[in-house]
Amino acid sequence: MSVLYPRVAVIGCGLIGSSVLRAARAAGLAERYAAYDRSDAVRTRVAELDLADEVFDTPQAAAAGADLVVIATPPAAIGPMAGQIAASLSPGAVLTDVGSAKQAVLEAFEAVAPDGVFAIPGHPVAGTEQSGPDAGFAELFRGRWAILCPLPRTDAPYLAAVERLSQFWTGMGSQVELMEARHHDLVLAVTSHLPHLIAYNIVGTAADLENVTESEVMKFSAGGFRDFTRIAASDPVMWRDVFLLNRDAVLEILARFTEDLQALSRAIRWGEGDKLEALFVRTRAIRLAIVAAGQESPEPNFGRNRKI
Amino acid sequence: MSVLYPRVAVIGCGLIGSSVLRAARAAGLAERYAAYDRSDAVRTRVAELDLADEVFDTPQAAAAGADLVVIATPPAAIGPMAGQIAASLSPGAVLTDVGSAKQAVLEAFEAVAPDGVFAIPGHPVAGTEQSGPDAGFAELFRGRWAILCPLPRTDAPYLAAVERLSQFWTGMGSQVELMEARHHDLVLAVTSHLPHLIAYNIVGTAADLENVTESEVMKFSAGGFRDFTRIAASDPVMWRDVFLLNRDAVLEILARFTEDLQALSRAIRWGEGDKLEALFVRTRAIRLAIVAAGQESPEPNFGRNRKI
Repeated sequence: MSVLYPRVAVIGCGLIGSSVLRAARAAGLAERYAAYDRSDAVRTRVAELDLADEVFDTPQAAAAGADLVVIATPPAAIGPMAGQIAASLSPGAVLTDVGSAKQAVLEAFEAVAPDGVFAIPGHPVAGTEQSGPDAGFAELFRGRWAILCPLPRTDAPYLAAVERLSQFWTGMGSQVELMEARHHDLVLAVTSHLPHLIAYNIVGTAADLENVTESEVMKFSAGGFRDFTRIAASDPVMWRDVFLLNRDAVLEILARFTEDLQALSRAIRWGEGDKLEALFVRTRAIRLAIVAAGQESPEPNFGRNRKI
Repeated sequence: MSVLYPRVAVIGCGLIGSSVLRAARAAGLAERYAAYDRSDAVRTRVAELDLADEVFDTPQAAAAGADLVVIATPPAAIGPMAGQIAASLSPGAVLTDVGSAKQAVLEAFEAVAPDGVFAIPGHPVAGTEQSGPDAGFAELFRGRWAILCPLPRTDAPYLAAVERLSQFWTGMGSQVELMEARHHDLVLAVTSHLPHLIAYNIVGTAADLENVTESEVMKFSAGGFRDFTRIAASDPVMWRDVFLLNRDAVLEILARFTEDLQALSRAIRWGEGDKLEALFVRTRAIRLAIVAAGQESPEPNFGRNRKI
């Protein structure tokens, strides 16, 4: 892979930011890498792990002179961070991010990005329930989708910048999809935000029961609950931000979910087994379609380890 | 492992029943194995796979002369099946099952088991989203819990029968827990039945959305949704039965879940980030406790394959 940007700066070096540094470096997508994190400990760790050529004490210093700036802070900090570094961005630089809620970022970028800077909100649909610079790895984006939500611009330099940023993600192993920001937020509300909200909720409900002990929940968690605890271990600050920033779409999808759940509850109460079975047959078919479409990554012995 | 029962009969040879045959045989827990399934195709397949010494055309013939009879049919069929084979059970035989709802089985066993038969409802907390005799494997129960819900009997022969059945599950690699049937049903409603209901529901909700296509849901399912689709691929008939048989406990836990979800929804609507974060920090701690307690089986590279 040839060099796409002479100099890349990553602002925020947690799981995703540190993985961008590792993956881009492994693929040789830039000549030099600058990093910044607001935490002293993380900056020290990034230097120890040798993830960047230079670790800066301010985001402005990291962004100055960079051809691509990737903001990988928690979602609510992306807009403010864009404002802080705006004056330090070079003309012709690309400004992007990796957050899970895109309309809010798009509005912030439109408000603060100087003329001559190409602001392109982005979202790699990849991650684990781990956090921090030690949790990152170069293969995180491989075989995953990266979604870009360009501004409503059609000028050739901007389209060229979008094309180059697409190559950057492709270079790290992802497939790229362009999507309107609001639509992204609705799609991700279904495929990611609601599943996390539900998982957080069920783990909380279980912990609060008076007549079932936490030890019993843990002991028999192989019955399905365990999968939810893994999801519910995801970064608390990041997910707080996602729900607040993507409030409208999350509440819309949640309302549909709740309505459907009430219908299911009623079917159980009245013993309507045919309704239950019809739904379960339908959802099983969806799983088979996902597996057939190859969206399920091969996980050796995976099914055998998962317990009902 | 020494022989615990001269003759074991398994009634119903799906994922669990066929795994019992494989695991017990691999561990040498019996001298002879009899099998029955109401499906011609399954009986043929059990014979082809050589999972039993004899495959019978009627459950009565399979149960006759057995020292241990394991009913592994879908949950709603367990009680009726116990009734069908009751007259064929030998004095001193142990009658057990593997269903996920235990109070209903306990009542059925109490109603139909002849004097001299030791009826002991059971439930291995193990499984995969696969079904059928080909999906079973000898290691399915290894490292998992098997729960026995004995009748309220304290006579020495019954307690000895419970002890021997415990050894049978231990011999297949499980740890055994004795539990009151109603309490079992409440604990499993939390750790297994509600997670499945939620997973079925969210997959159904996603499939019904007008403004997000099924192809988009599948494409971006790595954001958390994918884990739910796996759970929602579990056997439709079995799960229909579980919800109907364990109705009261499922509805009780579901009501708590819904109440908590409404509080979360309200916190999102009113931007109460501190409440969200406090819950997410708490649920993450529960996950860490589960991992520390070793309830998470080691899955190589597992976290790295799971995408947020």
